[in-house]
Amino acid sequence: MGIDKRTHDREFVRTFFTTPTAEKGVEDSAKKLRGGIGLRGMQAPDVWVPDNEDATAPSMRGEGAENIAKVVAEGGADFPGEIHPRVVWHRDDPETRYEGFEQMLTIADPERGAIDHIDGFVIPEVGDIDDWKKADEFFTLVETEYGLAEGSLAMSVIVESGAAEQAMTKLRDEMGKPTNNLQRLFMLVIGEVDYTKDMRAITPTGSLPSWDEIRHNTSSAASAAGLISVDGPYDDIRDIEGYHERMTDNQSKGLLGIWSLTPTQVVEANKGPLPPEDGYWLIEAGDREVKLEDDDGVQVYRGDRIGLEETDDGYVLTVGGDRLELDDDGVREELLDLVSYVPSMGDIVDSMEEFEAAKEAGRGAIAMTQAATLRIDGVEVDVERDRMWDEATYQALMVPISLFQDVYENRPDQHEELAAMYSEDVVERAMDVGN
Amino acid sequence: MGIDKRTHDREFVRTFFTTPTAEKGVEDSAKKLRGGIGLRGMQAPDVWVPDNEDATAPSMRGEGAENIAKVVAEGGADFPGEIHPRVVWHRDDPETRYEGFEQMLTIADPERGAIDHIDGFVIPEVGDIDDWKKADEFFTLVETEYGLAEGSLAMSVIVESGAAEQAMTKLRDEMGKPTNNLQRLFMLVIGEVDYTKDMRAITPTGSLPSWDEIRHNTSSAASAAGLISVDGPYDDIRDIEGYHERMTDNQSKGLLGIWSLTPTQVVEANKGPLPPEDGYWLIEAGDREVKLEDDDGVQVYRGDRIGLEETDDGYVLTVGGDRLELDDDGVREELLDLVSYVPSMGDIVDSMEEFEAAKEAGRGAIAMTQAATLRIDGVEVDVERDRMWDEATYQALMVPISLFQDVYENRPDQHEELAAMYSEDVVERAMDVGN
Amino acid sequence: MGIDKRTHDREFVRTFFTTPTAEKGVEDSAKKLRGGIGLRGMQAPDVWVPDNEDATAPSMRGEGAENIAKVVAEGGADFPGEIHPRVVWHRDDPETRYEGFEQMLTIADPERGAIDHIDGFVIPEVGDIDDWKKADEFFTLVETEYGLAEGSLAMSVIVESGAAEQAMTKLRDEMGKPTNNLQRLFMLVIGEVDYTKDMRAITPTGSLPSWDEIRHNTSSAASAAGLISVDGPYDDIRDIEGYHERMTDNQSKGLLGIWSLTPTQVVEANKGPLPPEDGYWLIEAGDREVKLEDDDGVQVYRGDRIGLEETDDGYVLTVGGDRLELDDDGVREELLDLVSYVPSMGDIVDSMEEFEAAKEAGRGAIAMTQAATLRIDGVEVDVERDRMWDEATYQALMVPISLFQDVYENRPDQHEELAAMYSEDVVERAMDVGN
Repeated sequence: MGIDKRTHDREFVRTFFTTPTAEKGVEDSAKKLRGGIGLRGMQAPDVWVPDNEDATAPSMRGEGAENIAKVVAEGGADFPGEIHPRVVWHRDDPETRYEGFEQMLTIADPERGAIDHIDGFVIPEVGDIDDWKKADEFFTLVETEYGLAEGSLAMSVIVESGAAEQAMTKLRDEMGKPTNNLQRLFMLVIGEVDYTKDMRAITPTGSLPSWDEIRHNTSSAASAAGLISVDGPYDDIRDIEGYHERMTDNQSKGLLGIWSLTPTQVVEANKGPLPPEDGYWLIEAGDREVKLEDDDGVQVYRGDRIGLEETDDGYVLTVGGDRLELDDDGVREELLDLVSYVPSMGDIVDSMEEFEAAKEAGRGAIAMTQAATLRIDGVEVDVERDRMWDEATYQALMVPISLFQDVYENRPDQHEELAAMYSEDVVERAMDVGN
Repeated sequence: MGIDKRTHDREFVRTFFTTPTAEKGVEDSAKKLRGGIGLRGMQAPDVWVPDNEDATAPSMRGEGAENIAKVVAEGGADFPGEIHPRVVWHRDDPETRYEGFEQMLTIADPERGAIDHIDGFVIPEVGDIDDWKKADEFFTLVETEYGLAEGSLAMSVIVESGAAEQAMTKLRDEMGKPTNNLQRLFMLVIGEVDYTKDMRAITPTGSLPSWDEIRHNTSSAASAAGLISVDGPYDDIRDIEGYHERMTDNQSKGLLGIWSLTPTQVVEANKGPLPPEDGYWLIEAGDREVKLEDDDGVQVYRGDRIGLEETDDGYVLTVGGDRLELDDDGVREELLDLVSYVPSMGDIVDSMEEFEAAKEAGRGAIAMTQAATLRIDGVEVDVERDRMWDEATYQALMVPISLFQDVYENRPDQHEELAAMYSEDVVERAMDVGN
Repeated sequence: MGIDKRTHDREFVRTFFTTPTAEKGVEDSAKKLRGGIGLRGMQAPDVWVPDNEDATAPSMRGEGAENIAKVVAEGGADFPGEIHPRVVWHRDDPETRYEGFEQMLTIADPERGAIDHIDGFVIPEVGDIDDWKKADEFFTLVETEYGLAEGSLAMSVIVESGAAEQAMTKLRDEMGKPTNNLQRLFMLVIGEVDYTKDMRAITPTGSLPSWDEIRHNTSSAASAAGLISVDGPYDDIRDIEGYHERMTDNQSKGLLGIWSLTPTQVVEANKGPLPPEDGYWLIEAGDREVKLEDDDGVQVYRGDRIGLEETDDGYVLTVGGDRLELDDDGVREELLDLVSYVPSMGDIVDSMEEFEAAKEAGRGAIAMTQAATLRIDGVEVDVERDRMWDEATYQALMVPISLFQDVYENRPDQHEELAAMYSEDVVERAMDVGN
């Protein structure tokens, strides 16, 4: 199977949740780990990362490695997601690399009983491809030391340097070479804060740059090498709306996973890439898109930026500062340019089934119609849009469905919440689509 | 000659027009092909692509290959553009690749009499560089089988996977190696729909992401390897304005060609990258740029977003929500920041000739002046801008002229329309510039 | 030491200032060179580039090379920045490359007495990595010819072709190979005008595209190979505000240096990447961010785009066309989303010291609070934001401080102006941070 097939158990990772491994001056230094491994349902991440690097004080990391082994040995069997501890590493510091190797040896030691529930390790601060190979070699040594199959431990990296950004373009050539086991690679996770430092970027307020290019490059490299791309942490944990906007932007780049710092962020990020329960219409009001309010099937705009008025010989449409005198067709066209529809999971499943039926009947392309009645300043206008669907459209729109199917197969603990979100019927049909 | 000189007959491709090759249940399954090959003038594309892949039902592709040969044998000699049929291919499916090879053998068979008019083939769904080499090898086999010179058939690819995105960065190293004929490469065409699928990107409305990075990477790779970059299809065939905006954005990235799905789109895309017949002024009105209306040489703004008022001691300029009290120089400067001039073909030719004369006279840099009288809310203000021209400016602004010259040399069937657009005189002088 | 440590004297270059080397028809053809080498303080660039390429007429370049040697021999010892003359080069023209080699031989000739003050040469119009190696070889020949240590002359390139854009991704693999001395590489400088030509990009007005991707790719390659990235010229020398916006955007990409065409631009670009003397608040007013006016510690907004009104049961906040009825918490949250704080050098130093103290005390993360009283339409609202600082935050915010420290160590001629900007105390503490 080509490496550009995602070859791990999970084909999608929505959530990457980190937890400190050992805290000083508390009765149970592993308390947070016990909290993390106890998470279930939408609060439980697809990938849980006991973080023995930045989230844990350097002096506590020895104890942290032992805590990981202990807690995972106890609770790992029942945890619904995958478990990938993060150990220390640095491309510029051999001492740190050796320390990371020792942490892996500790956590994976069969005597500690955690290894059956450890899916892999996360390596931060990697440099160029040869540095990745050093880490891969330690995975191999751990596997042989403990009688595990070579390549059975997944390796994920945090991409937080220009060197690592370049290394991603070499993976397809390097994976599968006789002297490495880089096929073990699983996630490419962006670390924007350290990347910002390595790139020596400055913003006036000290906020993070949006780093569009590294996000694209990571997503593209993941696609080329059959890996999964995950965006870095979103610091302002109170700003749920901003977290959503980041996810939406990521999704448009094929970056479907994101780091979560709190269970609340986990819930948001588990739902983020899934289609909404109910479809809705959007209208471009200046620089922002506004959700229209459904009033008995009529889509109502209540803002002040767009105005509509009926005149004897047509309409006057005002958008921001611009004033347009239009006839019936004109107003329809202008409004059609302003509105768009966000389909629900049910809508997507309906369209998929319709297209599959058309294919059955030997038709390669069909038109899907979206229609709505808009109401602006009390004036109602009917708009309608046709979209041609062919095989490619179908395949492209399969992505959220495939993600849902992957989630449903791998996360039985979320079945109830998913059924509550979408209804049993939609869930069932979504699982059938494409089969 | 280095590979970074464009080494094919065409140095520019504006339009890439696809046509289904065989349709079921119609009297003449090749009817659309006959329509396509009959196109002339602005309706005829620079590159015509009989599409034996997505546009044609799988069951009809055998007949499609024969239709291509038949129709091109009959009408190929008189077709004004190049002809590059698209055959099937997939990086992940040997059966499809072999099928593509057989389609090439059918279309190129000298017995069918089409090959003299076939310029090359388009290979979709390519993967990494080794996959491109597999396709190149089939071209070589076809050439030797039919006694054609090795490398005489151009190969163009559809870039629609992360693996292909990475492959583009290797072309300069791989082209010209003894065991391939990759110098045959001609166009790098982006396939956004399948790329979106391969990248697993999701947008709320199901619309395509704008994919800025893949467009840049394709343009840059084309520049590095002496190839021609072409953007993918624009689905909403009724939205001519949107199609134009896409072209303008593409052009700013050096992506001068675009896919066309209809003869109407062909006309738009043939004219798209050429300078306008008449120059005009633009003004930034909030988030959009508005064309000023020329009233006897005065440039008039009629919108509401920008307001101007004369006061006893100067002016009050309102832009959106902002209110500025300005003196004569102040208002000039503010307005100068808001307006810009789009030169006509004639304007560009004038500037070119002026600079060439200055060079003759031994001057390396001269100032070009743009001046206008603006009228806003009845208040008139004169603005003037100098731009320094040096050799680099001259070379950069040669691009649209070179494109025009390439078009004029290769498309005699468009001479009449071009002369009608620009006047004989401007056309003649444009052909002289740079020589 | 790894190549990804910046290995040259300067770890940062703010300013790259070019000067013509010889002018026809003036009494002293080297007059401009004498002016350039005489610059001091904020008017003197970090890197001065006597430009024997585009800025100098082809017929004058022989004399130009001699002028460089003469002027640098006389004044080089006292010049406060580094001196990197630009010689001619072209990837497609052997004659030009040989001419560039001869210019280097002339300028570096010990007999002329300039070489002790020449830090390196700038090579324009480079192509792929093998072309870079041709230039590197000439550096080596010059060094051996004149008894200089191999690799002692720094090589900087102008990236102005797609081929060069790709070459940058190979530097980490190529630098340090036995048959080259590419470790001599120092600056990667973008040449947008020629790049635009090479990419064959077109804009309606003939203005330069913003080229986000090449700027990112250059910054990332510099980071991966331990080099310094510098943006190209900003043509409109009167538009200081635009020059600043360009720098701010560059800085968010890690592109901390920029070309300067005039001493005025040098002053702006020397100060550009340094934190401001005084902190200030910004508010998002529609598409632009507006600086709030400090009135006795109250931050006042005077524009019309944002309105605030107190009502019996809360507030009415209007932003552009949108009208929001909010309670106390609501208005705080909305405003908090709109405002941001730009810290002064002093603020940054305070935070750094606070975090270092916390680390001393064994705390890995602390909350930094930013608070302000905002006044809009006379209505005052208190807002407060916490930001968590950990080691990574600290490291990322060290960048402007490290840059300042590098400047302070390498530019004693600017100490007075820096002390005047920031006060002796802040300067002193800034130099201590991180040590």
